[in-house]
Order: sequence, then structure tokens, then C-alpha cells
Amino acid sequence: MSYYSIFLKKLYNKYIHRRCGISKIIDGKDLIAKVENEITVNVAMLKKTGIVPSLSIVRVGENKASIAYSRSITSKADSFGIYVEQYKLEELISEKELISIIQKINERKEINGILVELPLPQSMRQKIVLETIDPDKDIDGFHPINLGKLLAGNPAFVPATAQSIIETIKNSVHSIAGKNAVIIGRSIVVGKPVALLLLKENATVTICHSYTKNLTEIAKTADILVASIGKPKMINENYIKEGAIVIDAGINKIDGKIVGDVDFDRVQDIVGRITPVPGNIGALTTLMLLKNTIRAAKIQNKLD
Amino acid sequence: MSYYSIFLKKLYNKYIHRRCGISKIIDGKDLIAKVENEITVNVAMLKKTGIVPSLSIVRVGENKASIAYSRSITSKADSFGIYVEQYKLEELISEKELISIIQKINERKEINGILVELPLPQSMRQKIVLETIDPDKDIDGFHPINLGKLLAGNPAFVPATAQSIIETIKNSVHSIAGKNAVIIGRSIVVGKPVALLLLKENATVTICHSYTKNLTEIAKTADILVASIGKPKMINENYIKEGAIVIDAGINKIDGKIVGDVDFDRVQDIVGRITPVPGNIGALTTLMLLKNTIRAAKIQNKLD
Repeated sequence: MSYYSIFLKKLYNKYIHRRCGISKIIDGKDLIAKVENEITVNVAMLKKTGIVPSLSIVRVGENKASIAYSRSITSKADSFGIYVEQYKLEELISEKELISIIQKINERKEINGILVELPLPQSMRQKIVLETIDPDKDIDGFHPINLGKLLAGNPAFVPATAQSIIETIKNSVHSIAGKNAVIIGRSIVVGKPVALLLLKENATVTICHSYTKNLTEIAKTADILVASIGKPKMINENYIKEGAIVIDAGINKIDGKIVGDVDFDRVQDIVGRITPVPGNIGALTTLMLLKNTIRAAKIQNKLD
Repeated sequence: MSYYSIFLKKLYNKYIHRRCGISKIIDGKDLIAKVENEITVNVAMLKKTGIVPSLSIVRVGENKASIAYSRSITSKADSFGIYVEQYKLEELISEKELISIIQKINERKEINGILVELPLPQSMRQKIVLETIDPDKDIDGFHPINLGKLLAGNPAFVPATAQSIIETIKNSVHSIAGKNAVIIGRSIVVGKPVALLLLKENATVTICHSYTKNLTEIAKTADILVASIGKPKMINENYIKEGAIVIDAGINKIDGKIVGDVDFDRVQDIVGRITPVPGNIGALTTLMLLKNTIRAAKIQNKLD
């Protein structure tokens, strides 16, 4: 790229873009509408064959975030005619009892998806509990069979936040193939599955984390930057390549206000496009869970 | 690093290192001896409790490489007192028959590990066949449950070549944490599992492949470079950072001679250390399979 074209691009990013009212914000409204439409069509199609896609939400204890999450899923599911039932279990229930409840839901043919709300009480082994879920009902995608299929590049239930992120990226760039993608954070909820999904789209993928030494330098090579660190506003202009697509998967609370891992104000002149926090990744995640419930209903009824 | 220290390092790499007879080649003899000792000790320990670790090798057809591979495993296993039995099946056997044979081996308590030789005939779906193996007997680590555990960072059977590579790296560098690792190739046999194993050791990991645009530039950032491309001698001095640890996982045949993915002659003055081809990765891989067989015997007898 010549200095002249770099100059023009900077000029565009800094002034013209904003003045002309072209937003750099990926609001994701079009993607949300697309996914909502897909869900509506599929629920109608399933109902014609007598199937109501159905979901069990299992919650242990009274974690506020978990209550809010299940409420938001339930109200969204209701609006599409997807059946939701809730198991509200006491904090003091034993791991054995919880496992036995999950096993019973596994056997119920009328329930297609099972969502066990995390975190579980500290007395329980999350790994053992999640492995109890029938992999065909594992709409959250944390059962090792689904993670293994994801690693092998085969069809699988994929953790919903990762799915929202890859769909948002696919909807925001012309082509992912050959792009440099840098993911900051290596959780099983976001970092690792997003890395594999980007790899499947033929991006060159770098995974960074707390041990990474030259983080600003590496982040600056990214055409696509995914931040999932859990540190409010950590990513500023020093981490961003001109024109990069930035996905902010951070949800941090400061003075009662939700902020992301990216310092929006400091990067907005540099980025190509950026997701807002709070914003579409959260809204999409709920929809992805419902999409997975529909997929589960199809698999279980041999319609997939 | 100052220019003076870079100059000294270059001088050392180019002249002193070789003149003093200090080899840059990772021959892996010490690591092989260590793993062999570990196997010997464990076989003896198991035999004291009346257990002979046992392995079934299942081969369909007469693929020459597969025959050589099973011969090499058998002779190595014999030398440790690990029992090996071979199922030599006809090329024309159906997928259904193969699956039924694997299911029967799954049920035999005296067999701890099952290795299905790849590639299978084209008429068979490899994925379906490999998923038939009991995950606790899956010493090759290709069952989705084991791949999923690997992705989640939990204990799992890990594909043996990837295991050899990570052990070789751990044995060759002081510390992996914070190092930049670049992996060229994204197969489920080498690239993807090695990426996860390096990530678990806290390296910053980049996965490159045929779509990667600026490969030489990225490879040159690597403190640890793993080449698993399948292109003879593709990696030359343009891809290597001074002092990098280079793992050559390529096995290519040129004029009847086995060569790696790295052009050894052209990189030897630049690398810090490098694995030879043919060499220790191959020898270690067989040992890792036997180590996995022992682990399987322990798990099945609740000694793990």
C-alpha cells in the first residue's frame, strides 16, 4: 500500500466516515433479523410435522446472572413458540442428585435441548455434570463429544457465544480466508472455539493470553481481532491495525455500567468496524441457543 | 538485544557451535531412553498385579506403510513384554463388519488398547469407524471424546505424533511459557493437537496453512517452529528466526529417500536446534502408543 493510499484511508477513517454518518459500529441488526427469520421458518416447519422444539433449563441455586440469563432465554423462546421448562434446584442439592435429574431429562423424548446454567455450586464437578448431558441434547456445546467434533472440523453443537462471534465476523467481512486473526483469551467458551471456527474459515489464527509477551505487536498484525480477556477497556489504539475488524466479547461492570475489553473511544478512529458492548454478541448468543435447540429437535427426529 | 550480542550469537551459531562439535540436532536419545525406562517400569508394575498391557492392531487391506507400521509397533511392544494381537482384515470387508469387529474388541476385558490403521479403504467412513472405538481404549486419540478433552485441556489420549512433538519441545527448551510458537499445517494428526498442547504450556500459538498469506514473515516470529506441511524441503532460511527451535514433522519421499519439510542444509546455521528427518519423532511416536496402552490398562483397572 502506498503512503498516499494509507493517507487517504486514514483521512476516510478519521473524518469522512463519521461526518457522512456511516457507522463503524457492527450493530448486527441485519444478522439478528436473519437468524430470527431462520428460527421462525424452522419452528413452523417442525410444527407442521407435529414437533414443538423444547428446551430444559437447569439451574442450581439463585445466582442472579443465571436467573437473568434463563429469563432472557425463556422470553425469547416463548416469542418463537419454542417450549421452555425450568428446573430450579436448591443450592444444597448433591452432585449425584443433579446428575440423576439430567439423566432423566436425557431420556425424555419430548425435550430436545438441555442447558445447565453455569457456574455450578463449588461442591460440584462441572466437568462430570456437563458430561452427563446427552451429546445430542447438548445445545451449549460443552460436552467433550461436541468439542471433539469441533476440533476435528465436523458438524457439532458449538458454544453459543463463539457461534455468535463467527457469524458476526462472517457478516462483517467480505472473506475470512487468508486474513490474520488474533484472539486474545483462550477460554473454552470463547477463545478456543472461536480460534477453531476462524481456522475452518481459512484464517491464519493466533491465540494470545496472559503469558503472551509482545501482545500489542501481535494484536497489531490482526485483520480480525477478537478480545475476550475480562479486563475492562484494556485494548486501546496501541493494539489495533488501521482498518481492523474488532469483536469485543468482554462484559465487565464498572460503576454499574457494562463495558467491554476494548476502549471504544480510543480505537474508533482506527478500526474498520467494531462491535458495541453491550450489544449484538449478547443478543445473538440467546438466538444461537434457540437455533441449537431446533437443530437438536431435527437430529432427534431424523430430519437433519 | 544489542547489535553486538546479535553479532556474537551469529558467530556462535555459524562457527563455534559446529567447530566445538556441539550438535544442534535434537537426536532425542535421552528422551527416548527416558520414555523407554518409564514403559519398562510401568509394565513391571502392572505385571506384579497380574496385568499384561495388551493392544489390538486392526488393519484392513495390504497398505505397505500400514504393514511396516504395525510391524514396528509389534516388535517394540514385544521388547517391553506388551502383548500385541493383529486383526488382518480383507480389503473387501464391509464397514458394518469392521464396526462389529471393533465392538467385539471393545468388550474384551483383556485388551486395553485398539489401534485401527489408517487410511481405511475408500468405501469406509473413517469418522464412523473411529467413533466405534471405546474412548478408554482409543490409544490413537482420534475419538471425538478424547479430542474434546484435549480441547478442554483435560487429561486425554492424545494423537501419538503430537505427543512426541510436545515432549521433544519440552525436552529441548528451558521453558515454553510466553514463547511464540508457529505451526505450519492444521491436520488433526499433528497441527491442531500440537497447537493445543503448546497453548497448554502457555506458548502464544499461531496456526498457518495453505491460505496463509505472509508465511515467511509469520514463521520468522517463531521461537518454536513446527513444520507439518507435506512439502519436501519447503522451509528454508527465509522462514527461520535466528536461534529458533525447529521441529520437522514432515515425512516425504524423494528418489526413495525420506526427507522432511525443512531444508536442513539451508537452515542449520540459523536454527537454535532442529529435529532430523528421519529421526526421533518417528521413533518416539511408537513409544507414545505403547505409553498410551499402559495408561489404558491403568484406567481400565482403576489404577490411574
